[in-house]
Amino acid sequence: MSKDIVKPSILPGFMELTPEDQILFNKMLDTIRRNYEKFGFLPIDTPVIEKTEVLLAKGGGETEKQIYRFEKGSTDMSLRFDLTVPLARYVAQHYSELSFPFRRYHVGKVYRGERNQKGRFREFYQCDIDIIGNGSLNIINDAEIPSVIYSTFKDLGFDSFTIMINNRKVLKGFFQSIDIEDSTFVLRAIDKLDKIGIDGVEKELKSLDITDNAIQRIKEFINIKGSNEEVLEELNNLGIDNEVFKEGLEELFEVNKYINLFGVPKDNYKIDLTIARGLDYYTGTVYETFLDEYPSIGSVCSGGRYDDLATHYTKQKLPGVGISIGFTRLFYQLMEAKIIKSEDNSLTKVLIIPMDGFIDNGVKAANALREAGIYSQVYVDGGKIGKIFNYADKLNIPYVIVIGQEEAENNSYSFRDMKTGEQKNISIEEVIKSLK
Amino acid sequence: MSKDIVKPSILPGFMELTPEDQILFNKMLDTIRRNYEKFGFLPIDTPVIEKTEVLLAKGGGETEKQIYRFEKGSTDMSLRFDLTVPLARYVAQHYSELSFPFRRYHVGKVYRGERNQKGRFREFYQCDIDIIGNGSLNIINDAEIPSVIYSTFKDLGFDSFTIMINNRKVLKGFFQSIDIEDSTFVLRAIDKLDKIGIDGVEKELKSLDITDNAIQRIKEFINIKGSNEEVLEELNNLGIDNEVFKEGLEELFEVNKYINLFGVPKDNYKIDLTIARGLDYYTGTVYETFLDEYPSIGSVCSGGRYDDLATHYTKQKLPGVGISIGFTRLFYQLMEAKIIKSEDNSLTKVLIIPMDGFIDNGVKAANALREAGIYSQVYVDGGKIGKIFNYADKLNIPYVIVIGQEEAENNSYSFRDMKTGEQKNISIEEVIKSLK
Repeated sequence: MSKDIVKPSILPGFMELTPEDQILFNKMLDTIRRNYEKFGFLPIDTPVIEKTEVLLAKGGGETEKQIYRFEKGSTDMSLRFDLTVPLARYVAQHYSELSFPFRRYHVGKVYRGERNQKGRFREFYQCDIDIIGNGSLNIINDAEIPSVIYSTFKDLGFDSFTIMINNRKVLKGFFQSIDIEDSTFVLRAIDKLDKIGIDGVEKELKSLDITDNAIQRIKEFINIKGSNEEVLEELNNLGIDNEVFKEGLEELFEVNKYINLFGVPKDNYKIDLTIARGLDYYTGTVYETFLDEYPSIGSVCSGGRYDDLATHYTKQKLPGVGISIGFTRLFYQLMEAKIIKSEDNSLTKVLIIPMDGFIDNGVKAANALREAGIYSQVYVDGGKIGKIFNYADKLNIPYVIVIGQEEAENNSYSFRDMKTGEQKNISIEEVIKSLK
Repeated sequence: MSKDIVKPSILPGFMELTPEDQILFNKMLDTIRRNYEKFGFLPIDTPVIEKTEVLLAKGGGETEKQIYRFEKGSTDMSLRFDLTVPLARYVAQHYSELSFPFRRYHVGKVYRGERNQKGRFREFYQCDIDIIGNGSLNIINDAEIPSVIYSTFKDLGFDSFTIMINNRKVLKGFFQSIDIEDSTFVLRAIDKLDKIGIDGVEKELKSLDITDNAIQRIKEFINIKGSNEEVLEELNNLGIDNEVFKEGLEELFEVNKYINLFGVPKDNYKIDLTIARGLDYYTGTVYETFLDEYPSIGSVCSGGRYDDLATHYTKQKLPGVGISIGFTRLFYQLMEAKIIKSEDNSLTKVLIIPMDGFIDNGVKAANALREAGIYSQVYVDGGKIGKIFNYADKLNIPYVIVIGQEEAENNSYSFRDMKTGEQKNISIEEVIKSLK
């Protein structure tokens, strides 16, 4: 390589796809968008760069280390690391222009300088929906969220998936009833159940100085199994006299009742008392979604209810409920597991190949197809027909039209199905008809 | 404000829209995408952050001052400032995986720390298409590009716009014929014709030590007017015996011939010898597009042909032709000039308002509408009917369904057209039918 040439490469931890994979990626992203819109969520788009003091208003922790932060001029700025903080800032800033309940969706890239490892990305798409209330927000909204998840994953082509539901108040109240006031660390331990098993959880609880008796009660509690109605019944039968617990249980009853009414089949949701969500942020209903046949992928869509979205930016009380799909990681995992494939993905329906001297006919055919809404490309760069067929194959273009002397004289086109190899001489109207 | 509250605000020079405006913004962006796809362009998506040495391989200049550059760990990285450099890097890096001619489109945000001024943005969307050849690329591709511009702007709702076309070789050869070897600065001067007028250009040329005789010839040259055929004829009649000029003129003939064949009406394109494009980058055909009724907006879509895309990353010769729409700025200008309006823009078709005790009926109606593909929202948060009607109005939702005792008993819905105020009691099937 000459010394003037810079090796073309991207930074580690960034995803970049071939166009074929990108087509699939975009299709799936559009499907998510369309489903969010179907349920009345409005789009917003916020700057990728924000003031650091705004993004870190909540305070740093893990996040602060991962953030891409820099100065330009004398301004301290950072790249957003999620879409929730920008939402909080957006709602607080535009409060008087918005109508509540405010349903917004946001599909955009976020940035985290995580440790470099397979399947983890430093730039990734999040697809979020949230419903924000002004002062209060009806619990029925919590029941609608799973129907958005259901509709979206159905439309993405999945059949077997389960939306796990729990309520943080049920957990919190339960812990209070066994004299654990600050349940944050206990919840974090329980949240790891899938990863570290019941023994691992027990060990963590011991390290937190939880009494043996309380640990026993916790184990019994997270062992409650059965149908949703049985779980609710058992929870009720615990006879726990704690206001937070009772409130949570009532919410869980309501959510369970309405989820089904919103059209989510019984097979696709389940109350699971071990779902806690690591974040302290959530205060009521919490969700995680698993692909039944691929549990190792982990939750593909998570979220929950929170009491107050924007405490750091406004005194307005803004409760909300929302979910997020970490789409870049999900796409990577689905591709790795060969659950999705980019084969046969093409936007272009027809490649038109004019022989030498018949470019005019080719262009006219392209015009006619595009006019009819059929995505097509006319190959004007000449060359051997075999090479051009190969080009169509590589791009997964399903149909090819060849135009030469004979076709031009008969005002017809040699129309070839690239999959079957079937070929026939037909008029452009017939081509359009057969493709519509 | 309590001292714990951070004022919610964004950095200057960043665009953030209300959801209503965002709906319009996204619709227009989707229209652009759809048109690009119709012509066989494939999507790519590259990281917003790249290695600085890669992004600045060409060398800095103006760009280097504007770039958002920072270090994380020991890595020197920057935000992309256009989509062309990432394309060059992408094609060089993935050369063996791509099929040529490679038609790619890219819609994404780019970043430039420009001086803060009205209508200039530091984060903005570019919408690019390029056709990249491997070694060579037929001139007919240059003629197809305007048909993409035409199709796109038509679909965006514009009728009166003109795609201005020129050829840098014609200019270069002409300048050689009057003994101006390095025409870079002369071209830059001519490019400013619209802004500084013919006298301004003359003054700039004088300051470049151009002889009076040459200036006279230049003025005559850029004064050539008439129909495209007349301009071509006049250029031919100049009898300039220069290889570059002749090559350029031949290209311009070809492009002019095929543009029309590609379906661009005569009214929508025009050879204009004053169009040069400031960038040295372009080597053949160049394009600029103006809205006839709003010339002050400037070019809304520009581009051209270049000899070699990726000289800084590969020794492969990769000629190409492409255009770019700076969409954020365009959207801002169209809104400012009230050429587009977000009024009446709503994705949600129906707001369903269940009265107290009839939420179940409301949810069922929402399910039925969504099932039929009708975007709808069910208002579950209660409150006075007037307030909720107001909510629908603010969100531009065109139809409202009210369900109460009477409706539930008759298994009907009170269906209201929010614009006309017309209201009728009909079944959900009739609602669906009337909205489809």
